[in-house]
Amino acid sequence: MTPEEFRVAGHALIDWISDYRQRIDQLPVRAQVAPGEVRQALSVIPPSRPDSLEAVMADLESIVVPGITQVQHPMHYGWFPSNASLASVLGDIASSGLGTLGISWESCPALTEVEEVVCDWLRQLTGLSEQWEGTIHDTASTACLTGLILAREKATQYSETKGGLQSEEKPLVIYTTEEAHSSITKAALLAGYGKDNLRMVAMNPLDRSMNPEALAEEIAIDRRAGNRPAAVIASVGSTGVTAVDPVEALARIADKENLWLHVDAAMAGSAMLLPECRGLWQGVEMADSISWNPHKWMGTILDCSLFYVKDPQHLIRVMSTNPSYLRSTVDGEVTQYRDWGIPLGRRFRALKLWFHLRLDGIDAIRERLRRDLENAKWFATKVESADHWNVVSPVNLQTVCIRHTPPGLEGDALDQHTLNWVNRINQSGEAFMSPSILDGRWMVRVSIGVESTERAHIERLWRILQSSAEAAADEQKAI
Amino acid sequence: MTPEEFRVAGHALIDWISDYRQRIDQLPVRAQVAPGEVRQALSVIPPSRPDSLEAVMADLESIVVPGITQVQHPMHYGWFPSNASLASVLGDIASSGLGTLGISWESCPALTEVEEVVCDWLRQLTGLSEQWEGTIHDTASTACLTGLILAREKATQYSETKGGLQSEEKPLVIYTTEEAHSSITKAALLAGYGKDNLRMVAMNPLDRSMNPEALAEEIAIDRRAGNRPAAVIASVGSTGVTAVDPVEALARIADKENLWLHVDAAMAGSAMLLPECRGLWQGVEMADSISWNPHKWMGTILDCSLFYVKDPQHLIRVMSTNPSYLRSTVDGEVTQYRDWGIPLGRRFRALKLWFHLRLDGIDAIRERLRRDLENAKWFATKVESADHWNVVSPVNLQTVCIRHTPPGLEGDALDQHTLNWVNRINQSGEAFMSPSILDGRWMVRVSIGVESTERAHIERLWRILQSSAEAAADEQKAI
Repeated sequence: MTPEEFRVAGHALIDWISDYRQRIDQLPVRAQVAPGEVRQALSVIPPSRPDSLEAVMADLESIVVPGITQVQHPMHYGWFPSNASLASVLGDIASSGLGTLGISWESCPALTEVEEVVCDWLRQLTGLSEQWEGTIHDTASTACLTGLILAREKATQYSETKGGLQSEEKPLVIYTTEEAHSSITKAALLAGYGKDNLRMVAMNPLDRSMNPEALAEEIAIDRRAGNRPAAVIASVGSTGVTAVDPVEALARIADKENLWLHVDAAMAGSAMLLPECRGLWQGVEMADSISWNPHKWMGTILDCSLFYVKDPQHLIRVMSTNPSYLRSTVDGEVTQYRDWGIPLGRRFRALKLWFHLRLDGIDAIRERLRRDLENAKWFATKVESADHWNVVSPVNLQTVCIRHTPPGLEGDALDQHTLNWVNRINQSGEAFMSPSILDGRWMVRVSIGVESTERAHIERLWRILQSSAEAAADEQKAI
Repeated sequence: MTPEEFRVAGHALIDWISDYRQRIDQLPVRAQVAPGEVRQALSVIPPSRPDSLEAVMADLESIVVPGITQVQHPMHYGWFPSNASLASVLGDIASSGLGTLGISWESCPALTEVEEVVCDWLRQLTGLSEQWEGTIHDTASTACLTGLILAREKATQYSETKGGLQSEEKPLVIYTTEEAHSSITKAALLAGYGKDNLRMVAMNPLDRSMNPEALAEEIAIDRRAGNRPAAVIASVGSTGVTAVDPVEALARIADKENLWLHVDAAMAGSAMLLPECRGLWQGVEMADSISWNPHKWMGTILDCSLFYVKDPQHLIRVMSTNPSYLRSTVDGEVTQYRDWGIPLGRRFRALKLWFHLRLDGIDAIRERLRRDLENAKWFATKVESADHWNVVSPVNLQTVCIRHTPPGLEGDALDQHTLNWVNRINQSGEAFMSPSILDGRWMVRVSIGVESTERAHIERLWRILQSSAEAAADEQKAI
């Protein structure tokens, strides 16, 4: 395709995207397709001759769009906000158009240095001190795996340079809670710690935050058993119920015990843009690594996960490679981001943060986040004040966990009722929420924060919730 | 930013990208900026109020572009081809515009199913049998780490579910060569094997391919020592000199010894689109995992690395997570790509492959790859037939490794001469190549295969090479 053909096609595509974003609230929130339906609409055989752009865009419209759960829809309250602000989309388009290659500073100095700048902008904007240096990973899963590998190597005095983890005689142990994100267990297993050496520390039953005394005790038990405590992973705003571990208390323990402390603020990091929320991660300066995702609530399009460390030399020592074909005369003077994470090659992801922050400005972003916090408060108050409705977990941020408990329903019948009313809504396409398990019973997470979600949408959601729960209860009675 | 504002801005950006791609051959190939120059041009303080698009695009033009080493430039012969075909860029733009979230099939059925379809298209197009199932990773580094974690878990009967790698008494060992990509050593260390358990198997000195007898011998030595051989990583088209390990012979050994065989064809996978090149990975059907990067020579924009396995159940067993908030009624019926790699969240990367294959068609892509192979042959013949010039490694694909050896120059003086003439060219911005070390001495890799590189560019390169080498030799004599 020539640049001139691209110009024509690009204009058509931009128009299509603009139209799509304008009509998104008329689409069903949850994709209405059955398993295999998209696949069956596509050719099994790869195309040998070029198709026209019109044909590809027609398929985009008729096959792809119906197969999307519209997370940019104002009535999307599922999982977590996954905003793709159009300002950041422009940055992503610029990145694609430039077609750069990030494998060393020399391969694209601008890619490296814009990343340095925007990571530092976000450091300032979240109130972190100058001791932190950041980079962009794809997701918090990868950032967390990186953190746990760093912890492993620090605890073993760099076992990788010797016999690896398998040469260690006493098992390394890591500590988190059951409320922590599933990616933490996954990262612990991938990094080789093993399930037996992953401790799920007891939580405060009211807010599902890690109990520091329980952590101290678990560590003491491990030390007595001859194990080697290596790392604590603290969640700030867990995915499930936005639980907030007491970072400061955990940091004191980690410091005393010489453990790596990784703070996972994947969703809640966006809230740290608001000075009034920073109490939630009080003590964060004592951590060793932090990750959070601008690609969630803040709205810089996926994939954009920030990973901060205080000591990049430690990161570089574990992650560094220096093949001869990548050497250059500036080695030592410049940042080589290939040594700050797992992949060698990287896209120019910093551009989407750069465009987003410059075109929207942080003032507007902060205003939107505050709007969402207000909406969550308003919604929680409505739920709490209604008969048979409950908010089942503290509303620390923008997620409200709720249950509808009609008189006489409990146990499995209540579970069935919960799934009935939420599935009824999800299937309708009018709104979408994630049912989730809390203390062994289903509840529904209402995660507020899509860029286009205004108070009127929340009011509408509340009406839909009430009528769906009533209809489900009636139906269940009738059976 | 509203969709209407995005429309206007998007059109301006598309025009800018089209213009940029048209004038790319007038830009210096290697970025001419000094370390810190880009950073110093940017604001230290994050913007609070919105900037205009004009201001951002002016900075893109005046600060970012000069900071890019232009890998889309027809005179770029560095590292490896990193083509970002404009057809694939359109797919990437569509992905950004849709702003989808891939964390489960339910979150975007189309993302999952288009990925299934395009991975199968590429399977067919590279002549792999139906036993392979694929997914898209960001880079071959990540794919290789995944392969080595799978190997580790298979060899330990899933140690992760128990005490992890650290519970194993006899060390697992993996086998590769010094010619293999640096990411393999990195992956081995990250996966916890440790440097002591990474064997660099002897190579055939002429073509730097792994010697199968040497592999068999190393395995035997390890078995006698009580170690546990776990995996072989075979390179098909290494980054350094496009060395090709004898996959079939290695596969027989791996099969007999019950080792995992990962085939790293990051760059050369594109050549497998050509039936006449498939002899290079003869035996690949016996491997356990394969990775190759359409984002290199084939030209689907970074990041797009294919990872194929024969047994996804094994992959899922090691990588799976299933938190309650991600459960849905279709679990078990659909593919959950979160269980096929490290990250939970994924972009709709399949769209760039889908657009690329549909808009360009495989016939045209194959024609271009054949053009590059012919150009490499032509260039190698020119070099070989010129006085004092040598091709120093077999030309298996599109990379030609050369040295200029003026009479009387050897050892360190020859190294200095090599670096002198290549740096002279790289600094000029006229062309760019990667110097690299072979058998302890510098040589220059001429990696052919940028989408816009025609025979005339290679002819020009050959003239530049000769005059630069002569000038460097004269200069060195003068000293």
